[in-house]
Amino acid sequence: MTRKTYAIVGLGLLGGSYAKGLYDAGYEVIGIARRQETIDYALAHNYITQGSTNAADVAKADLVILCLYPKLMLSWIHENKQYFKKGAIVSDIAGVKRNLVLPIQEALEDTDAQFISTHPMAGKEVSGIEHADPAIFHKANFIIVPTKQNSESAIQAMMDVADILQFQHISLLSIDEHDRMIGFLSQLTHVIAVSLMNTHDNDKLVDYTGDSFRDLTRIAKINEDMWTELFLFNKDILLEEIEAFEASLDAFKIALQNDDEQAMKNLFIQSTNRRKKFDKKPGKS
Amino acid sequence: MTRKTYAIVGLGLLGGSYAKGLYDAGYEVIGIARRQETIDYALAHNYITQGSTNAADVAKADLVILCLYPKLMLSWIHENKQYFKKGAIVSDIAGVKRNLVLPIQEALEDTDAQFISTHPMAGKEVSGIEHADPAIFHKANFIIVPTKQNSESAIQAMMDVADILQFQHISLLSIDEHDRMIGFLSQLTHVIAVSLMNTHDNDKLVDYTGDSFRDLTRIAKINEDMWTELFLFNKDILLEEIEAFEASLDAFKIALQNDDEQAMKNLFIQSTNRRKKFDKKPGKS
Repeated sequence: MTRKTYAIVGLGLLGGSYAKGLYDAGYEVIGIARRQETIDYALAHNYITQGSTNAADVAKADLVILCLYPKLMLSWIHENKQYFKKGAIVSDIAGVKRNLVLPIQEALEDTDAQFISTHPMAGKEVSGIEHADPAIFHKANFIIVPTKQNSESAIQAMMDVADILQFQHISLLSIDEHDRMIGFLSQLTHVIAVSLMNTHDNDKLVDYTGDSFRDLTRIAKINEDMWTELFLFNKDILLEEIEAFEASLDAFKIALQNDDEQAMKNLFIQSTNRRKKFDKKPGKS
Repeated sequence: MTRKTYAIVGLGLLGGSYAKGLYDAGYEVIGIARRQETIDYALAHNYITQGSTNAADVAKADLVILCLYPKLMLSWIHENKQYFKKGAIVSDIAGVKRNLVLPIQEALEDTDAQFISTHPMAGKEVSGIEHADPAIFHKANFIIVPTKQNSESAIQAMMDVADILQFQHISLLSIDEHDRMIGFLSQLTHVIAVSLMNTHDNDKLVDYTGDSFRDLTRIAKINEDMWTELFLFNKDILLEEIEAFEASLDAFKIALQNDDEQAMKNLFIQSTNRRKKFDKKPGKS
């Protein structure tokens, strides 16, 4: 059995990190990017074995990973799906799954390729191939989001990718489970950080800022194009999560307004007990 | 000129850290606590030069630092103010100043002691003298909150304390400036962390939790007695800060509801630019 040939479409931070991780493990990696400069950089730094600015070159790959923003991925699929090799497995890295996975699977129905969605929960605050680093995967979760369209062998192929890239933990979630989890743990937290940072124009406060404020606003530095897309793809769930948080905030506000010491203490005891379960376990990130 | 004798009233995490820092710098430190066990521990571990469970022993000190919860400090002052030495300087460590500093200064008007308020912006998630450690001050801000009741020499005496304990930065704020700053940077952030942690009963999510959620909820583990007091002392300002945050969150929610991509991007660009100013400077904590 010959080893798989991989194609990475889009060589940004994550695409570059995928390419480098697969290359370092000895695989044939075709890098596809819009700009020749990106290809040249990837070749010069041993991220890829071949590069191309021509999407048709995905035809050489057994497994294609689309490392594109969600909207661009949808249009890319419609323009280039005819190039996939017969039996090719196509995957992605998108942070949302509803309104994305099923439309792509539908678009591929008239081809011999199979789309299986995944979400590598890893990243950095910076973008671009020059910051790519497969070490970002080593303590991260890799989520596979199979649908009834997906074969066992496609699921296994993505588990293999996660193993090659040394992800710490692999899990399988449904589309709805994934987007609900991401809506709360990732999207709501970013909305809160941004909203806290936007509450005041307050750079006089820098001198007094301790770790609490810095921790809560670290993720307020945010890529506006990517996150606007992700939020709109998950709009209804994110609105529900914002409203659930607002209700929780309101419970505290009412207790404070009423000088209700016992209600405040109960909320603090609850949050303290719940947070303890989220302390990092030894050996986990 | 002889060196000052200090008294620390209340040997918890902060009182213990004050005592140890002053003791290590060679000063006479009288520790006053309710329980003899605490005194014994402090003596055995070289935190204090003398200890007492009798408040009247503050009479031996030139400078008394009250390391008590705010409400207890108010009642302690009323019960024990007659014991202060003539000319004594009395200070505190409380995290709020309105409804506290002026009542204490008023209570001391019939004595020869002067109350000058300070806030060491340092702490730990744990309490008790066994966790005391003067190193918590070394990268922290020391805020002096003088009023027109305070003499230059009292302000200087507190600057000396901050220097002895090796605080990184000393600043002077008015009572209102202090409580407004704390209401936003510290109290609002704790309310947000608690409310986020209380949004769902969600320990199934632990497996998927990344740094974003952990960063935003670290301070959701909270001492319910102390923070309930602090929040109630600063109630009106904290309610204003919660409402300002809610308005900021609402601006995002409306943009999302309306699919207003440009409004969302503008909010993200604003938060990104503002957050950059809060990045830690080299050599600063």
